[in-house]
Amino acid sequence: MYRVKTFKYYSTYKICMIEEVFELTQNGRAKKWHAFYGGKIEILPKVPIRTLDDFSIWYTPGVAEVCNEIAEDEEKAYDYTNKWNLIAIITDGSRTLGLGNIGPKAAMPVMEGKALLFKFLGAVDAFPIALAEQDADRFIEIVKAISPTFGGVNLEDISSPKCFYILERLQKELDIPVWHDDQQGTATATLAALINALKIVGKDISEVKISIIGVGAANFATIRLLKAAGADPKKMFVVDSKGILHPDRADLKEKKGYKWQVAIETNGERRTGGMEEAIRGTDVLIAASKPGPDVIKKEWIAEMNDDAIVFPLANPTPEIWPWEAKDAGARIVGTGRSDFPNQVNNSLVFPGVFRGALTVRARKITDEMCLAAANALAEFAERNGLSEDYIIPRMTEKEVFPEVATAVGVKAVELGLARLELREEEIYEIAELMISATQRKIKKLYELGFIKEPPS
Amino acid sequence: MYRVKTFKYYSTYKICMIEEVFELTQNGRAKKWHAFYGGKIEILPKVPIRTLDDFSIWYTPGVAEVCNEIAEDEEKAYDYTNKWNLIAIITDGSRTLGLGNIGPKAAMPVMEGKALLFKFLGAVDAFPIALAEQDADRFIEIVKAISPTFGGVNLEDISSPKCFYILERLQKELDIPVWHDDQQGTATATLAALINALKIVGKDISEVKISIIGVGAANFATIRLLKAAGADPKKMFVVDSKGILHPDRADLKEKKGYKWQVAIETNGERRTGGMEEAIRGTDVLIAASKPGPDVIKKEWIAEMNDDAIVFPLANPTPEIWPWEAKDAGARIVGTGRSDFPNQVNNSLVFPGVFRGALTVRARKITDEMCLAAANALAEFAERNGLSEDYIIPRMTEKEVFPEVATAVGVKAVELGLARLELREEEIYEIAELMISATQRKIKKLYELGFIKEPPS
Repeated sequence: MYRVKTFKYYSTYKICMIEEVFELTQNGRAKKWHAFYGGKIEILPKVPIRTLDDFSIWYTPGVAEVCNEIAEDEEKAYDYTNKWNLIAIITDGSRTLGLGNIGPKAAMPVMEGKALLFKFLGAVDAFPIALAEQDADRFIEIVKAISPTFGGVNLEDISSPKCFYILERLQKELDIPVWHDDQQGTATATLAALINALKIVGKDISEVKISIIGVGAANFATIRLLKAAGADPKKMFVVDSKGILHPDRADLKEKKGYKWQVAIETNGERRTGGMEEAIRGTDVLIAASKPGPDVIKKEWIAEMNDDAIVFPLANPTPEIWPWEAKDAGARIVGTGRSDFPNQVNNSLVFPGVFRGALTVRARKITDEMCLAAANALAEFAERNGLSEDYIIPRMTEKEVFPEVATAVGVKAVELGLARLELREEEIYEIAELMISATQRKIKKLYELGFIKEPPS
Repeated sequence: MYRVKTFKYYSTYKICMIEEVFELTQNGRAKKWHAFYGGKIEILPKVPIRTLDDFSIWYTPGVAEVCNEIAEDEEKAYDYTNKWNLIAIITDGSRTLGLGNIGPKAAMPVMEGKALLFKFLGAVDAFPIALAEQDADRFIEIVKAISPTFGGVNLEDISSPKCFYILERLQKELDIPVWHDDQQGTATATLAALINALKIVGKDISEVKISIIGVGAANFATIRLLKAAGADPKKMFVVDSKGILHPDRADLKEKKGYKWQVAIETNGERRTGGMEEAIRGTDVLIAASKPGPDVIKKEWIAEMNDDAIVFPLANPTPEIWPWEAKDAGARIVGTGRSDFPNQVNNSLVFPGVFRGALTVRARKITDEMCLAAANALAEFAERNGLSEDYIIPRMTEKEVFPEVATAVGVKAVELGLARLELREEEIYEIAELMISATQRKIKKLYELGFIKEPPS
């Protein structure tokens, strides 16, 4: 086994030891495997090439007529080219995982991995492009220039605040869905988990007080989605590295940037101070700040209201260990990790979101569509029976992906943003068929030896 | 059969009739098939995904260590990502086939077809990107920005003269091979055919007079390669739409552009006039101007020297029908078409060129490497026995592709342009194995029904 999968909770010391072994074996293996395969995706025909004669259809001279059709009506690109099922995964490498600005080439292994997830979980053809361009405006121009090829854009690992500006402008200026997974993906998963957690504790989203630690890509979008889902911004207390966001904070006032917008609409109680003051007396804590485990203290959790919901989402280590949060009185805890219960994981979101958006050839992905995805996730888990350790579907519950796709596709049609006005059952059927066929194909390629066994 | 493959030569009228039927059936079929498959390529994993656990190697957390390695040494992108075998096919759609500037979306079916050819014939992963950008400088900046992802760039269907400027600058400014297939690809195939044609007629390249009709992307590069192969520019007579290029031509003098460079170094006899005057008394005619069949007249061919070599390369219809050229006295005729003998086809060139360049991780593709490819093509045909109807390998002779790859890779190593200094037999073995494995995989996907039968 290359991975120590189950951590025992009996002592902090023991956890750390296992963690370390885990890191070492994992990494040695990752380098070896990556070098063995030399990258992770390849490009293959999806049309028959039985003899070279077939190229007279796929290439000259036959292809000319297809080109002419699209020249007359650009929308036919959706019929005749890959556009209908193809997205770009685009990064500038400026905030790759927790590694910082490591540049485009070093970001590529993550992007290729993301492409695998898109294909395997969503049957979406996703092509990763790492851009050597750090300027936001030029980045936007480049994405716009390459956009005719694609049916959607997934932005990835771009530092904030420029990621807000980039997403905003591209969403406005392109007629295909644009998504920044670190924003909407994480926010959608977080909202899904919160919806179900609130059901368990019997609280209403419009009434709960929410402390929010960190105002990066994830929480910025989470705040917006929480509002869209009915949460009251006046009851949110948002903390960055300098303390609680507050309209009187000189640094925010001066820049009038994205955080300023958050500052003036949240913090109805005009709280000042740091994390402790923000967390005190809240019902929900959502942290997406920096790797723990000691970023958030047990004592602060102890000062939360009864039935506290705590989501320390930093990776690879949550801001506080789940068992410490529970010791301190939290009733429901969710983290970003697959080895703890309640993984708040954007991989639950983006494959279905794009599967749905592409299936109806959507022009946009809006916050309403994110809400629809969050509700689909929440309802899926609810149907399976909620508990404190099960508030959000697990990655292994693969039936969830076509359901998310369907919710998103239906919402796009409802909002008039779909080029193809498919019915709910059509969207579900297409999504389900495509995903299961893709997984069968990948399995077969492995069984037949076209995908080799990894080195030992 | 969707295609009338063999044209009878017995009458011009009959040819035209068959041509028309051919066009109709071909086109109806092409649209139907393209719509049936919805594009031509897909993205698939080349690594195992046996369970979701494998993603902890391919994605977080395992991938982080691979990213760090590349951040420390950028060249490791060749080891750990797809870069080593991935090229971009990039167009602005400004000169797509013979259809003119039909824009990026309408150009995409050609680019996807090209990607199929790259994969099937060269085992090269080629991803097509159509850019909504007509300005040459911005086009260059975009290609540079996306280049970290790729091990090479194939430019396609870009109008001249901007294609010359774009190629020149990108070749200078990038450290990966840049190729404009309409330039080097066609020029290399033309040179290969000429080398063997000259063997048959027993003339020396340094002594022959060459008339060149058209100064677009193809012939501009052909002129340069001919010189590199030993042809004397003073014995070349080059014609554009306004007549023979000549240093006294006011339009050329004024602009001092790419054609001016050609004008001052060719036409040692200071010929003036048009095609007829250029062709008269030459040994070789190379036309890449506009679709025929009546662009070049029989009478002009009749005025060429004995044992004339005539390459009317326009597609879909050569500037003069081969049998008319032969009637008029041409000894050897080559065209761009697969249904006539001696197809001067850049598909013989680019798959092997990139297979070779990628295999040694070349920094550039130079004219010396084009010459090496042309010689490899010529020698391959010579070994099979030259004749007036066989001066260049046929597309079905698939052993030719690894040979071209080897010649190009060896030359790159020799020139100090290779990141991997492989030996000749290593390059051949890798190229041969990769291409045959790719074709087996594609065949298997079809046999297993993962690639569906085309509609009837």
